[in-house]
Amino acid sequence: MRQAGRYLPEYRAIREKTDFLTLCKTPELASEVTVQPVDIIGVDAAILFSDILVIPEAMGMHLEMIESKGPTFDDPIRSQADLARLNTEGVTDRLQYVMDAIKVTKEKLAGRVPLIGFSGAPWTLATYMVEGKGTRNFDVIKQMIYTDPAAAHDLLRILSDSVVDYLNAKIRAGCDAVQIFDTWAGILAPNDLEEFSLRYIKYICERLETNGAPVIVFAKGVNSLEKLVDLKCDVIGLDWTMDIGDARSRIGNTKALQGNLDPCVLFAPKEKIKQEAERVLENYGTGSGHVFNLGHGILPTTPVENTQYLVRCVKELSPKYHR
Amino acid sequence: MRQAGRYLPEYRAIREKTDFLTLCKTPELASEVTVQPVDIIGVDAAILFSDILVIPEAMGMHLEMIESKGPTFDDPIRSQADLARLNTEGVTDRLQYVMDAIKVTKEKLAGRVPLIGFSGAPWTLATYMVEGKGTRNFDVIKQMIYTDPAAAHDLLRILSDSVVDYLNAKIRAGCDAVQIFDTWAGILAPNDLEEFSLRYIKYICERLETNGAPVIVFAKGVNSLEKLVDLKCDVIGLDWTMDIGDARSRIGNTKALQGNLDPCVLFAPKEKIKQEAERVLENYGTGSGHVFNLGHGILPTTPVENTQYLVRCVKELSPKYHR
Repeated sequence: MRQAGRYLPEYRAIREKTDFLTLCKTPELASEVTVQPVDIIGVDAAILFSDILVIPEAMGMHLEMIESKGPTFDDPIRSQADLARLNTEGVTDRLQYVMDAIKVTKEKLAGRVPLIGFSGAPWTLATYMVEGKGTRNFDVIKQMIYTDPAAAHDLLRILSDSVVDYLNAKIRAGCDAVQIFDTWAGILAPNDLEEFSLRYIKYICERLETNGAPVIVFAKGVNSLEKLVDLKCDVIGLDWTMDIGDARSRIGNTKALQGNLDPCVLFAPKEKIKQEAERVLENYGTGSGHVFNLGHGILPTTPVENTQYLVRCVKELSPKYHR
Repeated sequence: MRQAGRYLPEYRAIREKTDFLTLCKTPELASEVTVQPVDIIGVDAAILFSDILVIPEAMGMHLEMIESKGPTFDDPIRSQADLARLNTEGVTDRLQYVMDAIKVTKEKLAGRVPLIGFSGAPWTLATYMVEGKGTRNFDVIKQMIYTDPAAAHDLLRILSDSVVDYLNAKIRAGCDAVQIFDTWAGILAPNDLEEFSLRYIKYICERLETNGAPVIVFAKGVNSLEKLVDLKCDVIGLDWTMDIGDARSRIGNTKALQGNLDPCVLFAPKEKIKQEAERVLENYGTGSGHVFNLGHGILPTTPVENTQYLVRCVKELSPKYHR
């Protein structure tokens, strides 16, 4: 989950001088904010600072990051014809700045903790590209899948191939693990989930040249965990609305589970933070295969000392569970 | 689910002359838009036109309905002290306009179809009252439940008593069924769901004087359906992300199920609408206990003729399933 961000004064200091996209595109700065949570809150993995929308941006779409509105594209994809606008050749070459950031970050980390790289899943990327701006109902992308499924599938295929290339390049550049985020998987009806989201995640997982790097799949809001069991991945990420013990019993020990504390617990008094962290550990139970994490990214108004406290709690409490 | 609304030109004609709250508060107009979908699209139940936030408004909060922003309160509840501002006596008396709308609507319907009344569940009402405006992360209300759970529970208790009074008055005024909506139940972690949402729905269900009127509970995004089985209600509403057949097998035949077509299917070509409607019917399977419905309200840009077509399809296809 996102662990660099506005809750850290050190991050805000950099953002005051640099807009979001420039930060993503400047390896020295991206690596600096990537390492901040390792130094400041003591997490035991770094997550390369970036954004899932660098892929459509590298395809030539005009991405704007407006703090209050979320990301927007003023040239959304709405039809088969619009697909011709996408520059789908050499996408990963235009994302060389990400690979450079990985190399600089690995130097800065000097082996202290592993580095995780991520990509949006095709369905989530397509959602942003087609809607063009924030939406509550996702009616534009759904209109596309219901009225012109062929165009939707063409877009999803294009994205899938780019994600494969992109994640393989990240692994080659030094990422120790990769995560595929399907933030909007949970808005789909069961059949649509299979057809427009999961089959493309499956496609990607089967084509990754992992060289031993674990692959994490996080399909937010997908409660039919059984549908994720056969993916060629190592870890399933869970949001905070699921009982991680229940998830474990449904998924079996074929995958590790990552999660799943509600990020809002970090607003609570310390006693409650500890209690809720222990609840997650206890719910998972004993044995290996649990990557303690939040169920989503750290929120901008989170007190830094609470994030530090959570990390201390987990390090203190987890040995008796994770053997 | 909401079936009156902006997708109907007849509704828009009334809204051009009347703001949203005035429409809710004018029995003649509220009843007119309530009956519109019965006449125009042929649904076999009417849903009293209103808004869940009339309860906090009747408690003295300043509600504004801004089309592009959603509902806002400029005087949100943020602490125990703020609760003293709420005028909790005689709430249902100040909602007499709703009861009047029920009476006028019943006259207009003249027994053609039953009338359903609804209320927001305490958790969802509290979310709007505490956040005060649209939110993506629900961090303000969550901050309250984690830092000052006593204040949150006081608010939820006040709301629960008002909802009981309000729904009982609706039943007495003539509603043939009532529905409790917990739109934001799905943002809570499992323990918080029990503590801040479900226990208050349970409280309400146990205190309704139904006089035979079925009670529908719709806790959106709650996938642990097992937690709803023991509620004293007759029907469980499902959003479109669940497989209704799977839900039936998990819930058993103790409750009827309402749902659960994705409202965005109404943007599809007719062939697809029919196919998806039949999929829902088939997934539920044969036997009684299925109330065909959308998984959420009709969206403003939905073509009217598609809603009419869906109703015709369901009437044509369902007899072979519902015997």
